Amino acid sequence: MRAPIITLTTDFGLQDPFVAAMKGVLLSLAPDALIVDVSHEIPAHDVLAGGFVLARAFPYFPAGTIHVLVVDPGVGTSRPLLLARTQSHFFLGPDNGALCLPFEVEPPLELIRLAATHSFLPDPSPTFHGRDILAPVAARLSQGTPLSDFGEATRTIVPSPLPSPEPQADGRLLLRVILADRFGNLALNLTEKKYREISRSSKGSGFSLEIGGRTISRLSTTYGESSPGELLALFDSSGYLEVAVREGSAAAALGCGRWAVALLSC
Amino acid sequence: MRAPIITLTTDFGLQDPFVAAMKGVLLSLAPDALIVDVSHEIPAHDVLAGGFVLARAFPYFPAGTIHVLVVDPGVGTSRPLLLARTQSHFFLGPDNGALCLPFEVEPPLELIRLAATHSFLPDPSPTFHGRDILAPVAARLSQGTPLSDFGEATRTIVPSPLPSPEPQADGRLLLRVILADRFGNLALNLTEKKYREISRSSKGSGFSLEIGGRTISRLSTTYGESSPGELLALFDSSGYLEVAVREGSAAAALGCGRWAVALLSC
Amino acid sequence: MRAPIITLTTDFGLQDPFVAAMKGVLLSLAPDALIVDVSHEIPAHDVLAGGFVLARAFPYFPAGTIHVLVVDPGVGTSRPLLLARTQSHFFLGPDNGALCLPFEVEPPLELIRLAATHSFLPDPSPTFHGRDILAPVAARLSQGTPLSDFGEATRTIVPSPLPSPEPQADGRLLLRVILADRFGNLALNLTEKKYREISRSSKGSGFSLEIGGRTISRLSTTYGESSPGELLALFDSSGYLEVAVREGSAAAALGCGRWAVALLSC
Repeated sequence: MRAPIITLTTDFGLQDPFVAAMKGVLLSLAPDALIVDVSHEIPAHDVLAGGFVLARAFPYFPAGTIHVLVVDPGVGTSRPLLLARTQSHFFLGPDNGALCLPFEVEPPLELIRLAATHSFLPDPSPTFHGRDILAPVAARLSQGTPLSDFGEATRTIVPSPLPSPEPQADGRLLLRVILADRFGNLALNLTEKKYREISRSSKGSGFSLEIGGRTISRLSTTYGESSPGELLALFDSSGYLEVAVREGSAAAALGCGRWAVALLSC
Repeated sequence: MRAPIITLTTDFGLQDPFVAAMKGVLLSLAPDALIVDVSHEIPAHDVLAGGFVLARAFPYFPAGTIHVLVVDPGVGTSRPLLLARTQSHFFLGPDNGALCLPFEVEPPLELIRLAATHSFLPDPSPTFHGRDILAPVAARLSQGTPLSDFGEATRTIVPSPLPSPEPQADGRLLLRVILADRFGNLALNLTEKKYREISRSSKGSGFSLEIGGRTISRLSTTYGESSPGELLALFDSSGYLEVAVREGSAAAALGCGRWAVALLSC
Repeated sequence: MRAPIITLTTDFGLQDPFVAAMKGVLLSLAPDALIVDVSHEIPAHDVLAGGFVLARAFPYFPAGTIHVLVVDPGVGTSRPLLLARTQSHFFLGPDNGALCLPFEVEPPLELIRLAATHSFLPDPSPTFHGRDILAPVAARLSQGTPLSDFGEATRTIVPSPLPSPEPQADGRLLLRVILADRFGNLALNLTEKKYREISRSSKGSGFSLEIGGRTISRLSTTYGESSPGELLALFDSSGYLEVAVREGSAAAALGCGRWAVALLSC
């Protein structure tokens, strides 16, 4: 039988003892668990980045994987901690909107607000719920404890921090940069699926994207269609509209980062 | 049966082949071992940071875990390599004071100076004892080789680089910043346990902490007790006195780092 | 029986979902695989660094390990993807010269150009072959699929980006810095084996290395032979000529990085 998989996505970085302490708790309570790091380099307190990164990684994991997402600026306040079951996965994390991004890919079928203190470590630290609450709950879940044992069902949840595309008076769509990746590729808040819907119902003036004072007038399918250094737009490997520079950085070329505006006609 | 766990704490970084080479050696000699990274982002040659990070992570690991700590500015000199057994864990690393920090949490019951060259890789590189000596010893230990096979018992050990709190003429206690974590929280060299002892025996003028030209006159228990941006003092999730800014960086707000002075009355 | 080991070397960094997505694919198709990170901090598109890091790490892994190397500036062009078997290991990666560096340590006995699309994920993304082609092929290989099932044998391969030492008119050898490691140690393009051959056939004027305006006139065997702060030359733990400063950074002291020139007489 497959070992249970638990993934971790945090803003803890790799310099401090936080990630290892969580892993120690997980392995103490779930000796057979396979722990996989999604990322610990989420910018500190960046709820949107945490949710976005996990949303793009989790669909590739086997059914039954437990994903723990800890970007938690509200630790030590009364913000709830959530446990969710979707069609194929489980999710754990603070209720601050971050989990809404994976939930856009797979909506929650069951949503629990953690309350069963007997499933936490004794005397949980008020500043480290990842180690003292989320890790033991993830471990026990991986060993077969049923969801309903961890708390009570809830329906309310903090909404997603991801803005929707905004239709403009001139018929164009205002998009925003969500994140620049390591290569300087810029992810915009538009999925290929949504784009196809919009472009089917539009007058069809053709693709045109204005960003950072430049206009990209063609939708590419891969970097190889352009020359090194050229600016291009394509759907990235997770289905989001991406602005890229072949073998270069679009973020640097355009001077654009989080929330930079792009205007799309199609 | 639980797989043997081996943790790694180093200043090797993640860009070079050093960590992977150690893991290759470990897995060659201990195919069933579960390797867990504590941190490889310890600042280069920072013996105190290495010991402090491991001291705060190791107590969460299951009994029997083997912790390898390699921050080794003295590699290639005659400094000894140590193997220790504490009540629940094993530790391996150069004798440079770093191991004293976990030993303050769990004192060594058995302490061996590595000498059995037949348990090392053949012709160990004089510049990489982590790979050629510590990794094979950790692997063989995980497979059941008894401690006494690795060398001779010793009692001498380089003392801890962690300074003690210094009582001042005016009755206050001079503390120092040990480390700023990723969030800019400042860890001071005073544990909650020691603070309770001191405050029980003091006249009880109440908590007051001077640091970076600011005074914090209240001891908090969690970030949630303050407003975002406010400076606060609390005991962190490992029991050390911490200076923090809610949803911000105390290191940046105070301009403080390693060795910065704080004056405590209680 | 030992679990199959799959190592990953990429320039994906640890902030984005790319590495985790690859791991999800690997674990979906090879539930028993043990995944080991060699490095994900290879500088973006730095084919030479990727190959050099893997070349120095892989020999320490058990026979049968599968090494996936993804530094792929040409993703989405027609550059082939290769699968190789050497005496003890398997290698997978784009054909861009990076794999030549491990092949200098263990030459390929079998070399396949990936073509069997049924072994890829369906509809592979044109911008992420690591996830959609290399990961599923590595997973299936680890489960026993024979090499010949993945494509056709090839003999052509993009040559190594590592320059050879250049003999000069004055009898000296022009070397170049390949990489500075985290400690600022500079690796030069000369192995100990090659050095021994050259020095045996030379007139034997003795070791002398000019670099960054300084001359090092002695070959050391370890850092401990010098004083802290002193510049020295030695063969590193992988057998490459290294310029180092004991407990300091040679890169900073000399102002040298990639491609800096050194002149050797021996």
